[in-house]
Amino acid sequence: MSTGTEPRGASVTSANPVIDDAGVTAMLERGRTLAMPVLRAAVDRLAPPMDTVAAYHFGWIDAEGRPSAGDSGKAVRPALALLSAEAAGASPEVGIPGAVAVELVHNFSLLHDDLMDGDEQRRHRDTVWKVHGPAQAILVGDALFALANEILLELGTVEAGRATRRLTVASRKLIDGQAQDISYEHRERVSVEECLEMEGNKTGALLACAVSVGAVLGGADDATADALETYGYHLGLAFQAVDDLLGIWGEPEVTGKRPWSDLRQRKKSLPVVAALASDGSASRQLADLLAADAKSSDIDSFDEQEFATRAALIEEAGGRAWTSEEAVRQHATAVAALQGVDMPAAVRQQLVELADFVIVRRR
Amino acid sequence: MSTGTEPRGASVTSANPVIDDAGVTAMLERGRTLAMPVLRAAVDRLAPPMDTVAAYHFGWIDAEGRPSAGDSGKAVRPALALLSAEAAGASPEVGIPGAVAVELVHNFSLLHDDLMDGDEQRRHRDTVWKVHGPAQAILVGDALFALANEILLELGTVEAGRATRRLTVASRKLIDGQAQDISYEHRERVSVEECLEMEGNKTGALLACAVSVGAVLGGADDATADALETYGYHLGLAFQAVDDLLGIWGEPEVTGKRPWSDLRQRKKSLPVVAALASDGSASRQLADLLAADAKSSDIDSFDEQEFATRAALIEEAGGRAWTSEEAVRQHATAVAALQGVDMPAAVRQQLVELADFVIVRRR
Repeated sequence: MSTGTEPRGASVTSANPVIDDAGVTAMLERGRTLAMPVLRAAVDRLAPPMDTVAAYHFGWIDAEGRPSAGDSGKAVRPALALLSAEAAGASPEVGIPGAVAVELVHNFSLLHDDLMDGDEQRRHRDTVWKVHGPAQAILVGDALFALANEILLELGTVEAGRATRRLTVASRKLIDGQAQDISYEHRERVSVEECLEMEGNKTGALLACAVSVGAVLGGADDATADALETYGYHLGLAFQAVDDLLGIWGEPEVTGKRPWSDLRQRKKSLPVVAALASDGSASRQLADLLAADAKSSDIDSFDEQEFATRAALIEEAGGRAWTSEEAVRQHATAVAALQGVDMPAAVRQQLVELADFVIVRRR
Repeated sequence: MSTGTEPRGASVTSANPVIDDAGVTAMLERGRTLAMPVLRAAVDRLAPPMDTVAAYHFGWIDAEGRPSAGDSGKAVRPALALLSAEAAGASPEVGIPGAVAVELVHNFSLLHDDLMDGDEQRRHRDTVWKVHGPAQAILVGDALFALANEILLELGTVEAGRATRRLTVASRKLIDGQAQDISYEHRERVSVEECLEMEGNKTGALLACAVSVGAVLGGADDATADALETYGYHLGLAFQAVDDLLGIWGEPEVTGKRPWSDLRQRKKSLPVVAALASDGSASRQLADLLAADAKSSDIDSFDEQEFATRAALIEEAGGRAWTSEEAVRQHATAVAALQGVDMPAAVRQQLVELADFVIVRRR
């Protein structure tokens, strides 16, 4: 059995495709370069003080209002929205309003989720409700959500109406996922299926929208958009499976999160629910420990060894291996969905490379 | 000078048009009858427990989940949305998705505003955040907002896209208005213009959308929709001016609110800001009292006479008369906007009757 204290690191999944890191880096960089200025211009439309609060949230200014470089994240969604336009034979620029709208919805959900979950930190910075108060977190979240629809609908085209409808469906799934996440917190047992459904709603739906929105704006038919959404949905599930692995076994110096961060937050993530769903003594021991943890108010005073014990039990009960295999399965389903879509070979290759990147990433 | 303790009641405005109460009652009743079943079906789409929380908010069930008759409010907006369709020569049913979408946005804003403002009661019932917690109030508000766009966009028509765009613009104004409302609470002085702008955003914008959405769905051009919006915007300002009068001088047994409710909440409503903007000793006395009140934490222990004194000073400084005249001015502007619109005479008459009703109502 693993001690759980062995050096973490390397790829957390069993997958090891040869990936073109430079290609993925360039693709993500293009998304940032093309979409971010338009996103900033959109956010600038907000009336004071909402514009300032939003700028703080995005990391463009610090809590005192001074310009800040900020960590803008991986920006997978904007990159996908531009590729999405190219998948329909349009120029990447056609996808920009879609990229911006999806980012606005994503950030609306972060603002509200952080408040609902009581999370005080995001990307090493105090969250908006912590700095500007709960009312501003609610209000600016609402404003970003409205702005997302505004940005698309002001294009005034039939395609924009179709794209907004897909964005609205994705937004509702995002909200459903958060509702499930909240209700699961209070339950002792969550099934693997329930966890996958929740993660599909919270992560899959908006990635699906990102990878269809550009194509829809570029005139793609519904069948093409649906196939791209299937790719995006399973890419999201693969992404989240890896996230769940990194949340327990990731290297803190690479992920930027605290060691064992998901265990500290008592998250019922995939490795945990998969371990609990298995038979055997490790699973039963884990269940007993987690049941006791649920009643304990001082999980933050646990020492490293206590988390290591839990991580080792999850691994011994098969939760780590199952989640790693699940990431690979979702990756395969995502890539298979692209087969039915007629698109330029270079675009298809980039979508596949991005899927490869998602499951071998270390942060 | 008025003592402020004289019997309140009768019409709070100086307006006294002869109105056809039965006509307005029938118009509001039709809105409820046609739109409410569709609204309930829309809300039923929400995943548990959000459907239950929303049903509680709308007054369809009580806090224990038992069916409840509930006070569904005046339902001015649904009635306007159906008339709006008829203004464009369409059947009232064409306006139903618009009526439902506008009600959903209105209720999204109530859920979030009650939480932001810390209001524990709405229409004699505990607010959602008080009964189901802040997270559910945020989440269900978000869900209703998303649902509003979904209901319109799934019509799949060009008109639905245009209607949704107008709804989105109105939603953003609603959010701007709430941002202004919050920021004004912390300020000693608010100008009459700022107050009108805030009330235009909070009340005018969505009424404007209600009275244009049906017409847009019925194929009206932008000029017609804009003229209808102008009517609705000023109708909203007239409505709010009367609300502000009722918030101080309304009869509690008719309005259902506590006596002097707006004074208890230290609201910088139109009569207050108009009184403070005037010259003279009453205005100065009022300013001193309100400045002291702002620092006092126990305004709820004030006796009737203390509120009566403030109300009398507002009246003496001209705040009551100005607001009453403002309601009449906004009414006139609203009705004048209809002149440019080609519509069936019966529809025009009903829109005028509704405007008349708004400024002579007692609750």
